[in-house]
Amino acid sequence: MSATYGNLFQITIFGESHSNAIGVVLDGLPSGIAVDFDKIKTEMARRAPGKNKLSTPRSESDVPQIQSGIFNGKTTGTPVCAIISNTNTRSQDYQPELLRPSHADYSGIVRYHGFNDYRGGGHFSGRLTAPLVFAGAIAKQVLEKEQIEVLAHIKNIGSVCDAALDYAAPDVELLRKIKSETLPLLDRAKAAVMENEILAAKSEADSVGGAVEAVVIGLKPGMGSPFFESVESRIAQILFSVPAVKAVEFGIGTSFSQMRGSQANDPFYIQNGEIKTKTNHNGGINGGITNGMPVVVTAAIKPTPSIGKPQETVNIKEMKESTYSTHGRHDPCIVQRAVPVIEAALAVAVLDMLLEEKTYAGTI
Amino acid sequence: MSATYGNLFQITIFGESHSNAIGVVLDGLPSGIAVDFDKIKTEMARRAPGKNKLSTPRSESDVPQIQSGIFNGKTTGTPVCAIISNTNTRSQDYQPELLRPSHADYSGIVRYHGFNDYRGGGHFSGRLTAPLVFAGAIAKQVLEKEQIEVLAHIKNIGSVCDAALDYAAPDVELLRKIKSETLPLLDRAKAAVMENEILAAKSEADSVGGAVEAVVIGLKPGMGSPFFESVESRIAQILFSVPAVKAVEFGIGTSFSQMRGSQANDPFYIQNGEIKTKTNHNGGINGGITNGMPVVVTAAIKPTPSIGKPQETVNIKEMKESTYSTHGRHDPCIVQRAVPVIEAALAVAVLDMLLEEKTYAGTI
Amino acid sequence: MSATYGNLFQITIFGESHSNAIGVVLDGLPSGIAVDFDKIKTEMARRAPGKNKLSTPRSESDVPQIQSGIFNGKTTGTPVCAIISNTNTRSQDYQPELLRPSHADYSGIVRYHGFNDYRGGGHFSGRLTAPLVFAGAIAKQVLEKEQIEVLAHIKNIGSVCDAALDYAAPDVELLRKIKSETLPLLDRAKAAVMENEILAAKSEADSVGGAVEAVVIGLKPGMGSPFFESVESRIAQILFSVPAVKAVEFGIGTSFSQMRGSQANDPFYIQNGEIKTKTNHNGGINGGITNGMPVVVTAAIKPTPSIGKPQETVNIKEMKESTYSTHGRHDPCIVQRAVPVIEAALAVAVLDMLLEEKTYAGTI
Amino acid sequence: MSATYGNLFQITIFGESHSNAIGVVLDGLPSGIAVDFDKIKTEMARRAPGKNKLSTPRSESDVPQIQSGIFNGKTTGTPVCAIISNTNTRSQDYQPELLRPSHADYSGIVRYHGFNDYRGGGHFSGRLTAPLVFAGAIAKQVLEKEQIEVLAHIKNIGSVCDAALDYAAPDVELLRKIKSETLPLLDRAKAAVMENEILAAKSEADSVGGAVEAVVIGLKPGMGSPFFESVESRIAQILFSVPAVKAVEFGIGTSFSQMRGSQANDPFYIQNGEIKTKTNHNGGINGGITNGMPVVVTAAIKPTPSIGKPQETVNIKEMKESTYSTHGRHDPCIVQRAVPVIEAALAVAVLDMLLEEKTYAGTI
Repeated sequence: MSATYGNLFQITIFGESHSNAIGVVLDGLPSGIAVDFDKIKTEMARRAPGKNKLSTPRSESDVPQIQSGIFNGKTTGTPVCAIISNTNTRSQDYQPELLRPSHADYSGIVRYHGFNDYRGGGHFSGRLTAPLVFAGAIAKQVLEKEQIEVLAHIKNIGSVCDAALDYAAPDVELLRKIKSETLPLLDRAKAAVMENEILAAKSEADSVGGAVEAVVIGLKPGMGSPFFESVESRIAQILFSVPAVKAVEFGIGTSFSQMRGSQANDPFYIQNGEIKTKTNHNGGINGGITNGMPVVVTAAIKPTPSIGKPQETVNIKEMKESTYSTHGRHDPCIVQRAVPVIEAALAVAVLDMLLEEKTYAGTI
Repeated sequence: MSATYGNLFQITIFGESHSNAIGVVLDGLPSGIAVDFDKIKTEMARRAPGKNKLSTPRSESDVPQIQSGIFNGKTTGTPVCAIISNTNTRSQDYQPELLRPSHADYSGIVRYHGFNDYRGGGHFSGRLTAPLVFAGAIAKQVLEKEQIEVLAHIKNIGSVCDAALDYAAPDVELLRKIKSETLPLLDRAKAAVMENEILAAKSEADSVGGAVEAVVIGLKPGMGSPFFESVESRIAQILFSVPAVKAVEFGIGTSFSQMRGSQANDPFYIQNGEIKTKTNHNGGINGGITNGMPVVVTAAIKPTPSIGKPQETVNIKEMKESTYSTHGRHDPCIVQRAVPVIEAALAVAVLDMLLEEKTYAGTI
Repeated sequence: MSATYGNLFQITIFGESHSNAIGVVLDGLPSGIAVDFDKIKTEMARRAPGKNKLSTPRSESDVPQIQSGIFNGKTTGTPVCAIISNTNTRSQDYQPELLRPSHADYSGIVRYHGFNDYRGGGHFSGRLTAPLVFAGAIAKQVLEKEQIEVLAHIKNIGSVCDAALDYAAPDVELLRKIKSETLPLLDRAKAAVMENEILAAKSEADSVGGAVEAVVIGLKPGMGSPFFESVESRIAQILFSVPAVKAVEFGIGTSFSQMRGSQANDPFYIQNGEIKTKTNHNGGINGGITNGMPVVVTAAIKPTPSIGKPQETVNIKEMKESTYSTHGRHDPCIVQRAVPVIEAALAVAVLDMLLEEKTYAGTI
Repeated sequence: MSATYGNLFQITIFGESHSNAIGVVLDGLPSGIAVDFDKIKTEMARRAPGKNKLSTPRSESDVPQIQSGIFNGKTTGTPVCAIISNTNTRSQDYQPELLRPSHADYSGIVRYHGFNDYRGGGHFSGRLTAPLVFAGAIAKQVLEKEQIEVLAHIKNIGSVCDAALDYAAPDVELLRKIKSETLPLLDRAKAAVMENEILAAKSEADSVGGAVEAVVIGLKPGMGSPFFESVESRIAQILFSVPAVKAVEFGIGTSFSQMRGSQANDPFYIQNGEIKTKTNHNGGINGGITNGMPVVVTAAIKPTPSIGKPQETVNIKEMKESTYSTHGRHDPCIVQRAVPVIEAALAVAVLDMLLEEKTYAGTI
């Protein structure tokens, strides 16, 4: 618990990798939003596996089937449910007693007293991010109407880093353009090097981690609250539910810890009659509240724990030490597929906060 | 919103730096807990300012006055309210129109339409962490009964780092011992260097950031949930409400992004009939659920924005660019004072999750 | 908002009368519960229409299709999603501009800015109680393991009343037995009279209201909380979401307002070493907390607003006064079909509170 | 749990009858509301005891002391905390082992494992409604700005009924005028009879119950949601937390159960270009959503269980049957004092829903 996120725009996620379907319920959507299904398809495709040698060959059509909440192509305002069938499931021999290191096998067995669906990772599967991307795709369409956009790039994969994002003035055009790339990078020249980093890991039956840096454009100042629902709190809550995310940073994040105040502070100035900051180290948030600058957040993605290399583990049934290597389909790197997921999670959080903002932004 | 955190153990915080009082309501505490007021006093004192040259000279007695919920020295099980009077408030001339860079002045003015109490930072003041420490002090006493302990040290201040914590087998005795230190460090030899780092910043009318690394000992495996209330989500939500926290990492956190799976994965083994991991890169959490290893979390604390150095800013009343330097009392470094605050926030989150665990840990 | 009910056992409902499907997500179920699908079928059948001349001839198979959360016949502990297809939908000419009196047509149009799915009542349709009955059927199976049972009878339909229930010692055997009746009554002799009451309304193209009285057996004392989650608050919240419920009473309910304390108070006594009350006017709840006596609650069900008789109304498109009479399929009385719905809602509320009770019932 | 009510306007209540203080935290208030303290005082006085022979002689000054959230006489938008000191507490000999029938003594002892503060009823005391009245007094001032008013009268005390309220066109002027009466009645002629009803109970060392009928004027159509936060659900949740409330009815409430649809339905018509209903049996709510007519709700108040007459009970310490009669100060009737409490609870619920309405009322 809780499978539900959000205060006013609430999403409820369900499903296991090999259950009949995975899906999501979206509650609190404004009514009358014309849903662009092509855009949803595009977002789903960005996350989908099986497209190239960088990801798992498991191929899923991943078409969200709308059960409710959309009528004549528009949101009704009542809950939207979409399910995505699990079709390409392999009936293989699972050995749930062999705990896969750094996966949720052990913690899941204890949590659910051994009754969890272990097939394909069950409810812990990265596949559960598909309904999240659907939710995000809808949320983005609502945000668009208020000129708010969520964009992202790969900050690094292993030791290969993309060019630095300008936090105070991100290149929005470029960020939009790279959305369709397999490796969305500000510096296209890094694509080949990064691909090699992934393929090198793959060739060694290994995997590699990375980081996704995302930016929210168009947020007005004054959104959020100090305790306990700071913009950082709300965003971090959902990002830390995305499998494999192990660190969340706002603005320059961990780098703050090595800085002086005089370096870190963002000086205010006036631009076209609006208050802006010259730098944006704080990632657009002061005191938990937006200051009108782009919101910048980075999520560290751990290398997928599924690797071909043999690993030490425990057979929990026999309570004996053992070894394990992944033989099934898996990704050498999930960072590029995580980009639309992080965007989606952000979009969901931002829409929720935006709705809440309507309750205090106006004058009563 | 929301001033309330938690599902089952709920804390509600209130107050401004110069209002009559600050305080907190604790709901959902187990009944019959004998409250040790000396321990509360000790925790409050760890956070309190004015003790040495490393922090602001504002001296507050910070004695929480219990209004309700404790009877005959024990928790009743109904809400505990404690208030802390604001006594040492200076009646100085505030210039709320001069936006202090990287403080919440601007975002706060927009958020609250200019009606927020600006004196001493108002509701955004670090002073609001005092009731949080009180809440944590109570939570710790409940956790203690279940052999759960929250411990922390300063990971670094500026460029000065403490010795590395052994995530798989932290030195609990040492961590307990350093609680009473001004600079709680694993390597005592670093204390003088670190103090100099702070004093150097102070002497230049500047401030310096740092990081606090905390560990939760004694958690059984199986606590938490994948979506959307992973252990990471719940902890990050409250940590990101602590003023100045800009990054939260679990286990090795951001370092995951540069690693291979074979390096990052934590191999399972059996120790005294229990399943353990050899390393603890994941910080005791897999799939959002505890795995029985110590939970390790790091919070990056930005340098306090209040510095004596002149900074560029905007006079929002006149909508003109201007300069600002802090003249009042302020801390050159808040990292050491943040240690008990981070511990307290963690204790609150852990107690809340622990209560929830009771609903799924047993067999129905 | 919110389509989600509950703190620990959370149900999220979705669907419209003529959308692809209606359904529900159940989160927080204990893992390892063997699901008895026959029992679910029985509960669904109790609510289903089209069985006799007392209800609408719309016939729905209403088979909940499990999408997730059940593996090898047992709950996994992760969210269960069930959908029920909308198959028997008539493609008739709807006139949403003619506001049906006492239905949600007008309030719904304003609430959703005219984008709500009006076909068959859309999200407001009584059909949405089918997923609620599914949720209740699962909840009941969990409650059963703790010897808790939810039972109900028709208190009255129009002017025809059933025999009085003994609040302090309800006839549990009888209540179990009447579950399968079309009109579940304590006094079987009343069935024919009551049926006539319904058929009389039907013959006059009219409908008739009634009340359902439910009892929860097996609850231990000490469940619930004074503010703001009294047992009454939690149960009333969900009951008042059931379409057509307009009053909720606990114990003798409204009758309290005409009584003296000396008549109303429930004297305590000891029975087999346990504290009991001689009468149970308070319906098993004192101060918002169970006292170990049966919890008794009554829900008043208004006559279904769909009647054949012509009614005065407004054509909202033309903003002209007009008349309306229901021509489609509808129920002359929904009270008998509401019995399993009220039971289900109660079961959901009780399971949620029961899980919460585990957090304070034990000693920490 | 939970001591907190509300989604956007959240109130958190604390205190025991004889603890240092009782109080409340209000979160989510709009900023910039000029607080009229005289109006607060008036509301507090309406509830306060000790004013006449109809209520307990315990006299409390009941002055809410503002701790935070109000600056320069206006709400800051951050949490308001107010505490009310418990001054007039008698140091009498309590016998918590003698369970007072129909009070929360027994259920409370079990719920809190005997650690609850039993003095004066502790957290269950009707005294806890004082902070609720404070919260309501603030909420009313916000509602006033949107031309929304909460008004109430005594529907009946024992067998003495007030004149009927016209649900479709309540006499607002009259309802405002009677606010200051000891017994707020539409028909002043009933005051003496009703007073006699109370005094008769008093003279027999007994108490008497009653009902409060309240009306909310000025709500636009379109507020609320079908599942699970219908207007009825939200209001009932808070009303059923008010001690002694045992039934909640909307519109004609329980009377619906005896009616035909043709009688019960509220016909629509057009008045001055607005859609209205001729009758208002539904109490302004259809499908859980306001329809623009006055919201009408009735709360049944049980006779206060504290009576001088001897009652059968149990001595829980000795587990022996015993007798009990109240000797301390108590009210023969609490209905008249409940009027401002019911209004306050309603105002809190309505403000919360009104804030939420802002998230869906506009076009995105």
